[in-house]
Amino acid sequence: MTGIKDVAREVEMSTATVSRALRGLPGVTDETRQRVMEAARRLGYVPSPSAAGLASGQTRTVAVVVPFVTRWFFATVVHGAEQVLREHGYDLLLYNLGGDPDARHRVFETSLLTKRVDAVLVLSLTPTEDELTRLSALGRPVIIVGADIPGWATVRIDDVEAAAAATRHLADLGHRRIAYIGGATEGVLDFTAPTARLAGYRRTLADHGLPHDPALEEDGEFTVAGGLRAGRALLSLPDRPTAVFAASDEMAIGVLRAAHQLGLEVPEDVSVIGIDDHEMAGYFDLTTVAQSADEQGRVAARQVLCALDTSEWKPEQVILPTELLVRRTTAPYVGTAGR
Amino acid sequence: MTGIKDVAREVEMSTATVSRALRGLPGVTDETRQRVMEAARRLGYVPSPSAAGLASGQTRTVAVVVPFVTRWFFATVVHGAEQVLREHGYDLLLYNLGGDPDARHRVFETSLLTKRVDAVLVLSLTPTEDELTRLSALGRPVIIVGADIPGWATVRIDDVEAAAAATRHLADLGHRRIAYIGGATEGVLDFTAPTARLAGYRRTLADHGLPHDPALEEDGEFTVAGGLRAGRALLSLPDRPTAVFAASDEMAIGVLRAAHQLGLEVPEDVSVIGIDDHEMAGYFDLTTVAQSADEQGRVAARQVLCALDTSEWKPEQVILPTELLVRRTTAPYVGTAGR
Repeated sequence: MTGIKDVAREVEMSTATVSRALRGLPGVTDETRQRVMEAARRLGYVPSPSAAGLASGQTRTVAVVVPFVTRWFFATVVHGAEQVLREHGYDLLLYNLGGDPDARHRVFETSLLTKRVDAVLVLSLTPTEDELTRLSALGRPVIIVGADIPGWATVRIDDVEAAAAATRHLADLGHRRIAYIGGATEGVLDFTAPTARLAGYRRTLADHGLPHDPALEEDGEFTVAGGLRAGRALLSLPDRPTAVFAASDEMAIGVLRAAHQLGLEVPEDVSVIGIDDHEMAGYFDLTTVAQSADEQGRVAARQVLCALDTSEWKPEQVILPTELLVRRTTAPYVGTAGR
Repeated sequence: MTGIKDVAREVEMSTATVSRALRGLPGVTDETRQRVMEAARRLGYVPSPSAAGLASGQTRTVAVVVPFVTRWFFATVVHGAEQVLREHGYDLLLYNLGGDPDARHRVFETSLLTKRVDAVLVLSLTPTEDELTRLSALGRPVIIVGADIPGWATVRIDDVEAAAAATRHLADLGHRRIAYIGGATEGVLDFTAPTARLAGYRRTLADHGLPHDPALEEDGEFTVAGGLRAGRALLSLPDRPTAVFAASDEMAIGVLRAAHQLGLEVPEDVSVIGIDDHEMAGYFDLTTVAQSADEQGRVAARQVLCALDTSEWKPEQVILPTELLVRRTTAPYVGTAGR
């Protein structure tokens, strides 16, 4: 069987250089990489990363734990992270929980323990105490995206402020009955964002001297269908809200549909705002507080690379900016709507 | 360091049973698995899959090559495949090309060669001759989802028939000027579906004695934005079509927007049909030819498991059914629309 030494002899380079070239590591010119690849192919050499992993302690693989790979935010974070990692010769091991508590259990109890990976990205979950202990025990860098876990490396937006910006926009337009659609703040998939966004909404109402009405808070499960259901409930109230803030664009799109079904015009009868700048937000002319999911994935991947480059890495908390994008689903309160 | 033998001694079982329990393999009761996991935890045992992989020749990892993980079809196939594979103790290594030719090159030339995987799933790409040679050389099962590659194991729908069903539905409603929106039929990401769907459209026009007008065929890039652009072009023609068949729901949703922007009513002024039954299709009351992306992923994963279970596996071609779902965006041709 052809070994790395055979390839090194063939191209008259050190095995270290050949190894770097074959693994897509930096510090090797494209020309060198090309020559090495060609020689490796000619000689029928197939590198064995398992063996290399045992030798160097590195597998050049990063695990990513994702609640739902089919949802826009998560798929986009994965896309951004995968791109940066692949460019640096790392592969991405995907653990998609699909909203399944058993899957979560299995991934944290078994899969991540098999130490196949150099680092772990956890998307938008709040690990339990037990899960944090397990993650610590891995002795590998762990980066958490889209959640705020004190003491851990995190990449996220300021969810309280994002929700405050959305609520403030509606309050500044003169709305007083502002509804909120969020998601469960506890449960199997205990994201931190819903709790933070609800807090940002409530705080902003208080800041503007607006009354807090629990009847105006609904669970939309962070889906279009959930937003439609919650929107129908809110917009059917006898004293219906004149503005709805949905904590995700997918839910806000559901509210637009609910308004349409109930014969209400947006924004004439009801203003609607979301969070995300989802790929469909422009299509619906949806006003939203934009975040870059792609950039969160890229920054998290760069954090991983830094952590692996140096033994002196310290977990950092990175907060990426958000931006209010005013499109056409929000308008000033005109005094009679919703009364 | 605690070894598997220590765990086996503790629970008074064979190392083979302990190994199966720790790896999530079948043939072990939940109770046994529970006892083994607890003992492993108590003793601080961490299994080393790299070493196990070298011994058994298996890594219990399946590579999945995805053109764009952010698109509904691909994300949903990955979701379905990942679920089945995880249940059987396999991890999923994700190669997301993101539409990048360099990424494709790197994945086929380098990443897949590193033999970290037991099998490969390729989503919706037509591998080149060179790529097929490389895939063959892996000596691992390869399953191709959403494309038709003779001689290879494939899981897909009948794209010609799906397109024919959509076109037939419009022709049966009396439409004679039926436009088609598809995607590039060649290029870096050379899917087979666009070519097959275009063929199904053209063949059905001919079957119904309808004239083929190249001016009624547009490229919508399989995105909402592309469908909007193509829809605007088609619906602005002096002799505009009375019906539009878009080869994906995302493009069909773009056409609905184009009609709205041009002041046309759907289906009164123009009928619109897609393919997919995308999660947003119901929201838009979109008539479509439904396919189950999730099921394609699950079936492909089961093919992988079969192939790994027996040395007598032969590549199979699995074709899953599609179904015409008539919602509210298609209606009979009324004689004056579009004239």
